[in-house]
Amino acid sequence: MALNISGKLFGGVLCNGNTFVRFQSVLATKLMYAEYGDPCKVVQKCEEPLPDIKGSDVLIRMLAAPVNPADINTIQGKYPSRPELPAVPGNEGVGEVVQVGSDVTDFCPGDRIVPLANLLGTWRSHAVLNSRQLLKIPKELGIVEASTLTVNPCTAYRMLKDFADLKEGDVVIQNGANSACGQNVIQLANIWGLKTVNIVRDRPKIGELRNFLKQLGATEVLTEEELRKTDLFKSKKLPKPKLGLNCVGGKNALEVMRHLNHGSSIVTYGGMSREPVTVPTSALIFKDIKVRGFWMTEWTKRNVDSPQRKEMFEELIKYMCEKKLHGPAYKMVEFQNFREALMNTMTIKGMIGLKYILDFEKC
Amino acid sequence: MALNISGKLFGGVLCNGNTFVRFQSVLATKLMYAEYGDPCKVVQKCEEPLPDIKGSDVLIRMLAAPVNPADINTIQGKYPSRPELPAVPGNEGVGEVVQVGSDVTDFCPGDRIVPLANLLGTWRSHAVLNSRQLLKIPKELGIVEASTLTVNPCTAYRMLKDFADLKEGDVVIQNGANSACGQNVIQLANIWGLKTVNIVRDRPKIGELRNFLKQLGATEVLTEEELRKTDLFKSKKLPKPKLGLNCVGGKNALEVMRHLNHGSSIVTYGGMSREPVTVPTSALIFKDIKVRGFWMTEWTKRNVDSPQRKEMFEELIKYMCEKKLHGPAYKMVEFQNFREALMNTMTIKGMIGLKYILDFEKC
Repeated sequence: MALNISGKLFGGVLCNGNTFVRFQSVLATKLMYAEYGDPCKVVQKCEEPLPDIKGSDVLIRMLAAPVNPADINTIQGKYPSRPELPAVPGNEGVGEVVQVGSDVTDFCPGDRIVPLANLLGTWRSHAVLNSRQLLKIPKELGIVEASTLTVNPCTAYRMLKDFADLKEGDVVIQNGANSACGQNVIQLANIWGLKTVNIVRDRPKIGELRNFLKQLGATEVLTEEELRKTDLFKSKKLPKPKLGLNCVGGKNALEVMRHLNHGSSIVTYGGMSREPVTVPTSALIFKDIKVRGFWMTEWTKRNVDSPQRKEMFEELIKYMCEKKLHGPAYKMVEFQNFREALMNTMTIKGMIGLKYILDFEKC
Repeated sequence: MALNISGKLFGGVLCNGNTFVRFQSVLATKLMYAEYGDPCKVVQKCEEPLPDIKGSDVLIRMLAAPVNPADINTIQGKYPSRPELPAVPGNEGVGEVVQVGSDVTDFCPGDRIVPLANLLGTWRSHAVLNSRQLLKIPKELGIVEASTLTVNPCTAYRMLKDFADLKEGDVVIQNGANSACGQNVIQLANIWGLKTVNIVRDRPKIGELRNFLKQLGATEVLTEEELRKTDLFKSKKLPKPKLGLNCVGGKNALEVMRHLNHGSSIVTYGGMSREPVTVPTSALIFKDIKVRGFWMTEWTKRNVDSPQRKEMFEELIKYMCEKKLHGPAYKMVEFQNFREALMNTMTIKGMIGLKYILDFEKC
């Protein structure tokens, strides 16, 4: 049977009991690494005939897969998620169903999917995956939004939902507000009627960044310096924040904490400054500040099939289809030029930091 | 009416409508401060005739009241609890009911009581208080245990109950283990079948302290240096702690955190090193360490009449009457020598730090 897919076919003859069956398997192009190390060195492209699909398997053709900083760290062996080697890198992506196994009833050829499980290895042209590892998504969802659905928008969603009982008009303060996750926080907060105070590093074209974040729905955008001097809360222009989000650490996190309301949480999900979070004893005892962390990978592991996860995806996809929640600024890179995407992700520069997305169209 | 109490009587004549009534009121000896500052300077002794008791009032004769470090800080104006001035210092103590108002049905003369509310001002020979502010306690409860019931044993109890779901055999790690609260933690954990790893500063007679804490029920006692090198948890001699308690801060708190099990809380209730709690980003994100604080004063305020509070007192008093939970090492100081107690509390030295308790017997 020749499969109606773009991609190489791999022919052969198989002895099946007493009969000989002719088959053509898909030859997938994939990236692999057999040891942890510098992604530009250890990641290699190779080809592999895929197994025939059975039972609950689904044959997927990948459409797009982003290169996230966590993918880089995973390949470097610096991330707590350490897949068994050799491994196919890539944690996020969007694909199209090509063929389904005999037991699969909830997917049809042509369906769009994103991975439900962590570390499925999305940097490959095709894959045979178990249907239980996949989430069907509507075709009207943009390729960029779909391929970057499962990490940053979900992280923003969970941090806004799970660490404070926020009501319309409540304030969230975050640093690194221009990060991919920070942009999702701004947009989701805006959809839900929450106000955001967004802290960014000072930079030459700060006005541009301020405008960009305000267009996303930011209530206030302040530099670290401006935060130190602000009377936003003292003047009661805004109520004190009931939630702080931190992806920077160091003095910046301390400054965010200083403005929090009594009993609030500050949630750390990154550490861009490479400095720890320093918490004054008095903030813990007398202000009852709760210092927490959030890791999407761990949440996903514990909630693969949870109703909360289903509800989250439905809601996020709805916002994205309604154009209320936008994907990141991005650059598509042909799959064969994957090293360009790796290099650029390792040295992100500029105002927002483009998301490099591998494009499998020509595979 | 002459009251059957030790204490000065204050005589007078009161015009009550058309009749003249002879009365003798109690002249209370009390400490007062009219401004925040050095306790040895701003705290003065004075005498005050008490008002007649009405309705739900109770006349109390104080028996004993400890001088806690928080009392000192309150007088200094350095504590977040700032009573209206002039104020009577003292937050804890035990008294005896002398006379009850006409509406009081749950107290009788001779009953022993401790204050239910914060900052009632216990450093006085007598007081007229509302019966709703008092908790009746059994007479078999020792004076030392009773007078120090409402802060340290309660702090230890709540920290062990409210921040982790601890089961028999689970491990709690704490620094400053020889503090008054730390000793309560050891004893309560022991009663409940929990194991404790107790961190203390190295000192000349460390063996004595080790024995003292082990006699209280400590599973392990380690110096800070020993904790850094320990293989207690790696060797699986003990499971990793599910709760950390911190009254020191700085490097010591960091070392305690390092040994905690995934998803555990470290609860700060003091900051003896005057250094903040420094939390590595990775501990928050990848180990899901929860950094919290606890302040008994705030808990008491929110739970004055809660069933949890009633249950806690019943349980603690039961343990104390059964001699399973012991009061602190102490020294009784005659009320008139209160400056000695203040001075010594401000400069606590030695192995454990004696609790100085004001004794009102001769008042």
